[in-house]
Amino acid sequence: MSEKKSPIRPSVMYEILEGPFYALKNDVVNFLLHHKPNLSEQFTKDEYRTHVLQVVKLLADKGYGALAFDKAYGGENALNKYMAVFESLSKVNLNYAIKYGVQFGLFGGAIHSLGTKYHHDTYLKDTGTTSLLGCFGMTETGHGSNVKDIETTATYNHGDGTITIHSPTKSAGKEYIGNALHGSVAVVFAQLFVKNINHGVHAFIVPYRDKNGNLLANIEVKDCGYKMGLNGIDNGRLWFNQIQIPKENLLNKYGEIDAEGNYTSPIQNANKRFFVMLGALVGGRMCVGLGGINAAQVAMATALKYAMRRRQFKADEDKEEEMLLIDYPTHQHRLLPLLVKSIVYKISLHQLCAQFHTAQEDDLRKIETKAAGLKAIATWLATKTIQECREACGGKGYLKENGFADLKADSDIFTTFEGDNTVLMQLVAKGLLTDFKQAFNDDGFLATIKYIGEKIGMTLSEFNIYQARKTSEEHLMDDTFLSETLRYREKKMIVSLADRMRAYVQKKVPAQEAFLKSQVHMVDAARAYIERLAYRNTVEKINTLPASPEKILLEKINRFYALSLIMDHRYFYLESDYMDGSKTKAIRKVYSSVMADMYTYLPELIESLGIPDELTTIHP
Amino acid sequence: MSEKKSPIRPSVMYEILEGPFYALKNDVVNFLLHHKPNLSEQFTKDEYRTHVLQVVKLLADKGYGALAFDKAYGGENALNKYMAVFESLSKVNLNYAIKYGVQFGLFGGAIHSLGTKYHHDTYLKDTGTTSLLGCFGMTETGHGSNVKDIETTATYNHGDGTITIHSPTKSAGKEYIGNALHGSVAVVFAQLFVKNINHGVHAFIVPYRDKNGNLLANIEVKDCGYKMGLNGIDNGRLWFNQIQIPKENLLNKYGEIDAEGNYTSPIQNANKRFFVMLGALVGGRMCVGLGGINAAQVAMATALKYAMRRRQFKADEDKEEEMLLIDYPTHQHRLLPLLVKSIVYKISLHQLCAQFHTAQEDDLRKIETKAAGLKAIATWLATKTIQECREACGGKGYLKENGFADLKADSDIFTTFEGDNTVLMQLVAKGLLTDFKQAFNDDGFLATIKYIGEKIGMTLSEFNIYQARKTSEEHLMDDTFLSETLRYREKKMIVSLADRMRAYVQKKVPAQEAFLKSQVHMVDAARAYIERLAYRNTVEKINTLPASPEKILLEKINRFYALSLIMDHRYFYLESDYMDGSKTKAIRKVYSSVMADMYTYLPELIESLGIPDELTTIHP
Repeated sequence: MSEKKSPIRPSVMYEILEGPFYALKNDVVNFLLHHKPNLSEQFTKDEYRTHVLQVVKLLADKGYGALAFDKAYGGENALNKYMAVFESLSKVNLNYAIKYGVQFGLFGGAIHSLGTKYHHDTYLKDTGTTSLLGCFGMTETGHGSNVKDIETTATYNHGDGTITIHSPTKSAGKEYIGNALHGSVAVVFAQLFVKNINHGVHAFIVPYRDKNGNLLANIEVKDCGYKMGLNGIDNGRLWFNQIQIPKENLLNKYGEIDAEGNYTSPIQNANKRFFVMLGALVGGRMCVGLGGINAAQVAMATALKYAMRRRQFKADEDKEEEMLLIDYPTHQHRLLPLLVKSIVYKISLHQLCAQFHTAQEDDLRKIETKAAGLKAIATWLATKTIQECREACGGKGYLKENGFADLKADSDIFTTFEGDNTVLMQLVAKGLLTDFKQAFNDDGFLATIKYIGEKIGMTLSEFNIYQARKTSEEHLMDDTFLSETLRYREKKMIVSLADRMRAYVQKKVPAQEAFLKSQVHMVDAARAYIERLAYRNTVEKINTLPASPEKILLEKINRFYALSLIMDHRYFYLESDYMDGSKTKAIRKVYSSVMADMYTYLPELIESLGIPDELTTIHP
Repeated sequence: MSEKKSPIRPSVMYEILEGPFYALKNDVVNFLLHHKPNLSEQFTKDEYRTHVLQVVKLLADKGYGALAFDKAYGGENALNKYMAVFESLSKVNLNYAIKYGVQFGLFGGAIHSLGTKYHHDTYLKDTGTTSLLGCFGMTETGHGSNVKDIETTATYNHGDGTITIHSPTKSAGKEYIGNALHGSVAVVFAQLFVKNINHGVHAFIVPYRDKNGNLLANIEVKDCGYKMGLNGIDNGRLWFNQIQIPKENLLNKYGEIDAEGNYTSPIQNANKRFFVMLGALVGGRMCVGLGGINAAQVAMATALKYAMRRRQFKADEDKEEEMLLIDYPTHQHRLLPLLVKSIVYKISLHQLCAQFHTAQEDDLRKIETKAAGLKAIATWLATKTIQECREACGGKGYLKENGFADLKADSDIFTTFEGDNTVLMQLVAKGLLTDFKQAFNDDGFLATIKYIGEKIGMTLSEFNIYQARKTSEEHLMDDTFLSETLRYREKKMIVSLADRMRAYVQKKVPAQEAFLKSQVHMVDAARAYIERLAYRNTVEKINTLPASPEKILLEKINRFYALSLIMDHRYFYLESDYMDGSKTKAIRKVYSSVMADMYTYLPELIESLGIPDELTTIHP
């Protein structure tokens, strides 16, 4: 192994990796370290839920609950600070993060984003202090990914101007609803019927408990019971049997019933309205992606610290000591690529949060696409990383006291909630195809496809594919080569997706079926796009940094990241003749030497993740 | 999707997939279904451990405990039946399987395999009935994978002919020991010192509780506490402070202290002796592999049945119903390749069990290599499959009542215990290199490498690499093509491993370091070998079957398996110019059509797995 090359200052690196709110993040983590329950114990769900609720109340007391709301309601209008708190909670205990997210992000966020002044004035202050606890009733037993077709109805009564919320079937029950047991008010998503016309999904404030916590009549709440993890969250199911609410309880930013009982909306197209309303979820998706990454980094820091002290097998009979786990090449190959991926995805998610914070309405669709894709890629990485780290700690990783059990079980659902990852990746691909998606139903479809095919085709020719056999280390480590190689994969996959669709359309395959037949390809293209996005975002981040050893390290991290992607997808480059076998072999060699270099920075890099020792202890 | 081609009889297919003991397996599963605890509840570890112990006692009452022992001790000398019971328990509850395995397989098995008649007469009958509960004390806190360097000592006392068992340090404590809390006798592995000479690791019977269950003096037992899963197993730690035992308590099949106090052994070479003694583990490894596969098939059956009734999104606005999950290509791609892999690995493990049952001493080394590799590949597959199945069931997969939580948590340690998978894969690779491993320290090393390189090189030339561009479906579905393609990968990787080692040796790199530098490559070569082994075993199995629709289905399964491996490793074939891009693209197409064909058999195939509905319920 080569010697260390530069003096990394972990505190400087930490600030770079965590972004603007690093100090707030430190505060939150340190504040909660003392409240954290003993990992080695098992709790009943009631005990655990009570504890988690107490923690969230403590956070509210410190003013963290209302951060995203306006000043009038105790907040700072700072969604980015809210996200920073969410991230920090994810390091300490994912239950804290999720409970916090449900109360302030989903329940409070829905009122904030979908409601108007009346709703803000009525609910936000109490929500921020937790004197009002609420839940977010979107998912139903029958409809999770397909929110558009949920069954719950909200029928406007012209007689008395009220609205009736109703669950027409058992499968219309609101499902997996966090805060269902502790809460007393729900934001319920339902199909709004006015004069027998369905205006699509809208959100309504529906109280379901009285001041004393007793369930109101004709409402059923059922505990979801024990789950794989997150047993500190009180997930439940809710059914409504003809529940009357005042018309004012419609969160009416994007849809309203006027005094004459007519439906009005600032967005005429029902489809568009639906997607704008669901856009309220985008912050949640970024949070879930970041939560997964933070949990993965806790697992990673734990496994790496353990690997740097645990010894097994002598390298040589003459040696006094056995070898450190971290010195095994297989161990480095298991962990280091996952470590750099987590770092790069976190940077990318932070960039997106910052964009979102200052975004104009027109930017939102692109931000949503990116958030969906980064959420999926980040949470899949989290699941994989936590698993790999557990295995890398052997039997010790299996004992509850050492943390992996909770990290794994609690984070497992991240690939599903706030959007199933596979479904999200298709959203991303559809976003990429947007330019000709519209044309799908037009006569101009073929022309559009052809145009786009040619446009990207031209772009492709920019790449010097004569470099397919160039194998010098200098070339392979060159940022232009890396960046163009990632770009080639993204563009090529979109072209080939478009080609495939064109062929289906020529064969008169209906549009939906063409999408279906291209589904696997779509997910791959979306991955190529998002993986490259994270690389580009990290380049942008690097470009903002003054020259320093830490900047150099981040460059190395991004280079290692790019090489690991090329390794992951080398079949693609070979299959499309972008590289030949001599080149992929040379890349493997460079990849190993870059990994060996990264190894020399490990102690400082682990410290830069900003995870206190209390969270990364393997008990002897 | 194409129409179904042949009338599969699930009961016939079940017999083919489960092998000779299918009836016994049915009996065990059905017997235990009624004892199974309610999945939706959470138990304290004490409650759960008591329940699991009761179940194991019931199994002993039915005569299942002693199956592997001789008739004189209540058994049938039928290790293969013991394994069949272990497999069946894995379907119902992994805690049952592990507790059963610890008591009868590890504790009983060690006495059976390492002891002689005195030990058999004294302990086996009571072990089989559970009137004696015991544990298997091999792993220590400081030494898991590296058993050879455990710290516990067993010192022969020439004065009174006793042996003193001692844990010299805290890290010498026996760790993760199942049955530690319920048991009263341990088989303890320790370094045997006679006349100040260390004769290496041997096993000893060490009582640690009296008849009333009270701990004996100078022995410490500590509960390992809650774990990620398997909380029905009473894992603990044991330390011995100068414990005297009679000389007879040495399990003396492979090492003995004679009347004059001299150490004697039928195996002179200490290294060889160690590996022969550890060979006793080989049955356990097959069991763990099979246990993982059975758990994975429970998860798979659950996810597939759910996918065949769960609907989400309409394929077309005009359609009445939403689409079944199973009809999504991404869903098929996630699940079906894992399904066929689990089937093929199970067949391969069953073949190995049968070989082991009738094996001669000379065959054992090869069987150990295969068992190590199949255990690793099978348990990695299990972890991946259970995860994928959970995600494929969305939120429902996260609720404890639906089984994935326990399957995931309980099976997670399978990649670690009975040998860490990464370490096992290196054993496999070393096994493959055995022919020239000896030569490593000889002058003849280079000559040997050269000889082997040429030998495999010649073999390689048999492959028609001019076929690199042949892309007809007939060719790609041809069993000769598939089998040679898998063979090419295995052979090529061994040659390249040997080349690499030769290069290191020429550069005077010490042998151990050369192994270390080749570690990642070794794991890959081992995987290539084991993956092909499973294919070949399945071909052998197919060859024993009379013509039938079920035989045809198994042929299709094995073909799909081979194609999925080629897809997994297509970068390898491209990189080594065994195929060009047009061929890998054609293979992807064939792969998809084979998958579509497999889809038509799903209902019968799921039933053929022999998993009762009670074990695969997703609650509405």
